[in-house]
Formats: sequence, C-alpha cells, structure tokens
Amino acid sequence: MKTTAYAAAGPGQPLEPCRIELEPLRPDQIRIEVTHCGVCHSDLHMLKDDWGMSKFPLVAGHEVVGNVIEVGDKVERLKRGQRVGVGWQSGCCGGCECCQAGDEHFCPSMESTCVHRHGGFAHHVQVQDRLAIPLPESLDSATAAPLLCSGITIYNPLIEADVKRNTRVGIMGIGGLGHLGLQFAHAMGARTIAISSSPHKAREARDFGASEFVLSTDLAQMKSLRGSLDLLLSTIMVDWDWAGLLGLLRPRGRLWLLGPPPSPLTIPAFALIGGQRSVTGSPIGSPGRIVQMLEFAMHHGISPAIEPVPFDRINQAIERAGQGKVRYQTVLHH
Amino acid sequence: MKTTAYAAAGPGQPLEPCRIELEPLRPDQIRIEVTHCGVCHSDLHMLKDDWGMSKFPLVAGHEVVGNVIEVGDKVERLKRGQRVGVGWQSGCCGGCECCQAGDEHFCPSMESTCVHRHGGFAHHVQVQDRLAIPLPESLDSATAAPLLCSGITIYNPLIEADVKRNTRVGIMGIGGLGHLGLQFAHAMGARTIAISSSPHKAREARDFGASEFVLSTDLAQMKSLRGSLDLLLSTIMVDWDWAGLLGLLRPRGRLWLLGPPPSPLTIPAFALIGGQRSVTGSPIGSPGRIVQMLEFAMHHGISPAIEPVPFDRINQAIERAGQGKVRYQTVLHH
Repeated sequence: MKTTAYAAAGPGQPLEPCRIELEPLRPDQIRIEVTHCGVCHSDLHMLKDDWGMSKFPLVAGHEVVGNVIEVGDKVERLKRGQRVGVGWQSGCCGGCECCQAGDEHFCPSMESTCVHRHGGFAHHVQVQDRLAIPLPESLDSATAAPLLCSGITIYNPLIEADVKRNTRVGIMGIGGLGHLGLQFAHAMGARTIAISSSPHKAREARDFGASEFVLSTDLAQMKSLRGSLDLLLSTIMVDWDWAGLLGLLRPRGRLWLLGPPPSPLTIPAFALIGGQRSVTGSPIGSPGRIVQMLEFAMHHGISPAIEPVPFDRINQAIERAGQGKVRYQTVLHH
Repeated sequence: MKTTAYAAAGPGQPLEPCRIELEPLRPDQIRIEVTHCGVCHSDLHMLKDDWGMSKFPLVAGHEVVGNVIEVGDKVERLKRGQRVGVGWQSGCCGGCECCQAGDEHFCPSMESTCVHRHGGFAHHVQVQDRLAIPLPESLDSATAAPLLCSGITIYNPLIEADVKRNTRVGIMGIGGLGHLGLQFAHAMGARTIAISSSPHKAREARDFGASEFVLSTDLAQMKSLRGSLDLLLSTIMVDWDWAGLLGLLRPRGRLWLLGPPPSPLTIPAFALIGGQRSVTGSPIGSPGRIVQMLEFAMHHGISPAIEPVPFDRINQAIERAGQGKVRYQTVLHH
C-alpha cells in the first residue's frame, strides 16, 4: 500500500508531498489513517539533522492522532475504526527487563516514530499496537496530539520526582512543553515558577498556573531564586550556565533536562556535593504513563494552546515554529 | 585555657606540636578531651589547601572521639565525663529550614570542625552540643572515629537512594569510604560491585561484602558492567570519564560523587536524558543519621579496618595515608 507523506530531501530542505510505499504490516502492528499531527521541536531538530540521526528523505512527525484501518494478525487489543494516539515511540522488544516492568520507553531496542522510518507527517503511519494509546471519546483529537509527546515529556518528570503540594517547581522555557508543565504542576498543588527569556509571556504564564514569572535574562531576578527550587525542569535546548542553575536549587534539588543542549554540560562537583543536588534528564514516558497523563489532563481541564494548520501549509507551520512564534503548539490536520 | 595541637604552618608543611589558646566556650558548646582522631582524606586535601579554604596555621582532624570535660551554660543534653564523637560538622544555626528538618548538614551557616577553626589533631576540641554524638558503651573508640565522617559519608547516600535487597550498587575506590560502603550495602541486601584500580584489593573487597570485583583500569572489565548498576558511588577524587561511568548505569541509575575531582565534570546531555540517569553528590549526613548509622553498624558487625598510630607519629601517618598505603583507616590516639 502507498500513502502520501511530506518528506524533506535533505537537512533544512522544505517538505514536499510524495508517494511512499508502506512497509508490510508486521503481525504486532496497526496501520493508522492520520487525522492530526503535532509539530514538536524535536521534529525541527530532526529536519535539520541536529542530532546526527536523521535519514533522508525524512518524514518527521510524532504526535499522531488517527483511526486504525488495519491490524496485524497478532493484535487483539485494538480494532479497526478505533481512534488512537502515538507519540515519539512506535515500537519496543516487549521482552526485556524494561518492557516487562512497564518502562517500554527505556527498552534498548525501542523504535522511534520518525527515526529511520517514516513518521506522522503523512496520511498513514503504522506502529506496534502496544505503543498506540486508545483515546477517550471526550478528548478532542487536536488537543490530544501535543499531549502524546510534549505532554508526557513534561508530565513524566513531575511524577518521577514526586511533585506534590508545596513542591517548588521551576520551569525554564515556556513553550510547547513549558506551558503544559505549568498547568500540570499547578494541578498537582505545586508552587510553579515560570522562567523565560520572553517578558511578553508573563501574563500567559500566570494564566497557565505560574505563581511567579522570572525573566531568565535578568540576573537580579534569577538571583532572587537562589536556593529556592526543589525541581527545575529545563525545556531549553541551548547552552546555559548550568552551575548557576544548580545554585537555584534547595538541598536535594534536581535540575532536570528535557532537551539536549548542543554542548556537553560543565558541572563543578562542589555544586552537586554541598547540597546533594543533582542533574538528570528524561526522554518521554511509558505508554501506561501516557494513559495516566491523559486522564489527569482531562480531570483537571489541562490542554495545550493550539494553532491548527492544514497539512498543505506544513512548510509555513514549520518555519513559524522554528522562529519561536507559535503560541504554543502547532497541530496539523488533514 | 590552652591545649596542645598538631599544626601545619603552610600548605604541605609537616605538623608540629604547638600550644594554642582555645576560644571561650560558647553557651551551646562542649569542650572535649580528645582520645582518638581518624585521618580522613579530606584532612590531606585541607593540609595541602587543595580546596582553597584552608587557614594556616592549620589544625586538621575531624573524626574525633573523646570525653566531655566542660559544657556551656545552655547545654542540657550532654554531661561532663560523657564519651562523644564528632565528625566534619561542629556547628549549625539551629533555626533555619534545614536545621528544623533535621538536615543540619545542609545548614547554610554550618561550621566545619577543621575549617577556619582548629580541629581534632589536638588534645582538646570544642563543638556545638547538637553536633556531638553520644557513643554507645559497647562501641570501641578507635572503631567509632572513622565512622563519624567516612562512615556517614558512604552510609548516607545508601539511605538517600533507598538501597535495599537486590539494588545493584557499584562502589568505585576501595579505600577509607569504599571498604565501609561495601559492608553497609551488603548488610542492606544489595548486590555490591567493588571497582578499584588496585588488583591486590580484590580478595579484601570480597571479604568486605563485594559480590564482584572489577578493575577500573581494565576497559573490558568495565564494559562488562554496562547498563547494570542502580547506584554508582564514586569515592575517587580524580578526574574520570564521567560519561563512560554513566553508561554503567541502568535506567534511572545514579552516579553519586562523594569527593570532588579537581576539574569540573563534562557530561553530554544525552547520557542523562536517554535513560533518566543522574549525577549527584553528597557531603556528610545529619547528626540523626549518624546515630542511626552507628546503630546499624553495631547491629550488623560493620567496622572499619584500622591502623592505630600514636599522635606523636602523626607525620608518618599522614605521609602513609597520602601514599594510599593505609588498609584502610588510620586512627591516631593519645
């Protein structure tokens, strides 16, 4: 079977519609007719081959919502016609220690939706059934799309770090991930501090649940946070003064990276040892955690702010996202 | 009141006995007649001023056991004649969030036993009563001394990281801290892996409770640990391939520094993000945790391997410690 996809011929090239042959459906896979796909910053990095793992022609896209149109022979969990969502991960081995523990996102053989295979910027995509999330009926498809990657990526560390009432959570970078993080952390009872280089985002950040807004380019404002945060989620993919950020943490505080900056981090050991501070990071989350996250979002009325764009304007959408102009998530639709 | 102490006139200078005037006893302090004092590697760094915080003439020493000979006006908890131990910390503010939470070792105003004041390489030392640990009668003084700093420093992260049955704990550097860490982790039911550059320590490491011994200088042996450790405690104060060490961790694994290497750490973000791995560190532990640690050590028959040395041979003891020849802790005694 063939489908139409939006492919880049090389790094930084515009996306062109093209016909591609879908791989034969494996027994544990489902085929999805895509209705919506979010544009995540990882797509932009993949399209520029910033991480050296892009294979061209590249069909990016990994915040997919659509309907199951075919199921493999071994698939029992999902049926044709069912609406599902897919995030960054499209496959896992199913048998390793991680998969068995429900940590499929740590599977050493994990398959990524748009790495070395074609992703969701297309009319069809196919994924392992275990990684497809059945969507609750009352959840709007355009709303669901960004939650499947941006949403889980910022929700997961809040759970892993046991954020709850009174935890002081800083969120650095108020974009696709950050604006969801403020909502999640606020709904968990945390005290949330938005940290951004864009002063014009202050009001919106408060609307999303921030108790405070701190301008990251203002040294005095940043200093006012010294020793105050339990958790500092960094969504910025730029180099920074990491030791300085560690100084914003309370004892046992954690600096948590959700996107890789271009250069390795330089960390003086004393910045960690004195107050038992740590630097960590995390990728997405497990399928089980995605289900939990969607429930939490619906229960608390948490949703991404969306700019809907039809698929045939995908290049304009990607350009605008690259310029940081999107408030706060682009969702493509057919 | 005057006492005799062993002081270094400058960085790297030999210690000379000298008479010093003790500060007036504060109302919340006690004065201790020292009977034993351990030689910790931090003393060697202080004596060489490796951390730029030594004040000369310097009286080092911070693993002190002795008897209370005088108590300040406000001291109610301790009495003259009582035997107590003191570790790295000799004072705290008592009123901050950390002190109130029983995390006195994170107090921003903490006072260190041999930083900008004279430590335990002396006949007398004085400390805040809150930081003096009453010692159980059945605990030998020479055994207690190294537990007060080396012991708590390696015990504390095992508790903070929730080490228990089946946790896979690597301990890098089998010296003063490491040989105690193997015993503690083993007694907690963990699987312990000793990692050392000294092949001749293999048998002793197993005697201390290591399930495996891995030679850190043997690349193939190190590679065999890839992705296998939940916690990797580093007691080495030298620069290393930190990204390589992170590769030895399982998902959610932690690299935990207990001593500062000379250079800042260089960490590629992907080494953290992919498997939610972290780098952290910690200093000592709280007085409450020290009490708990002593109980645990006594209950499980855990004790440091000691080389007792009379105080008048302090310079030879320090030279031998600096050469890494001590198996595994020097304890000076009057």
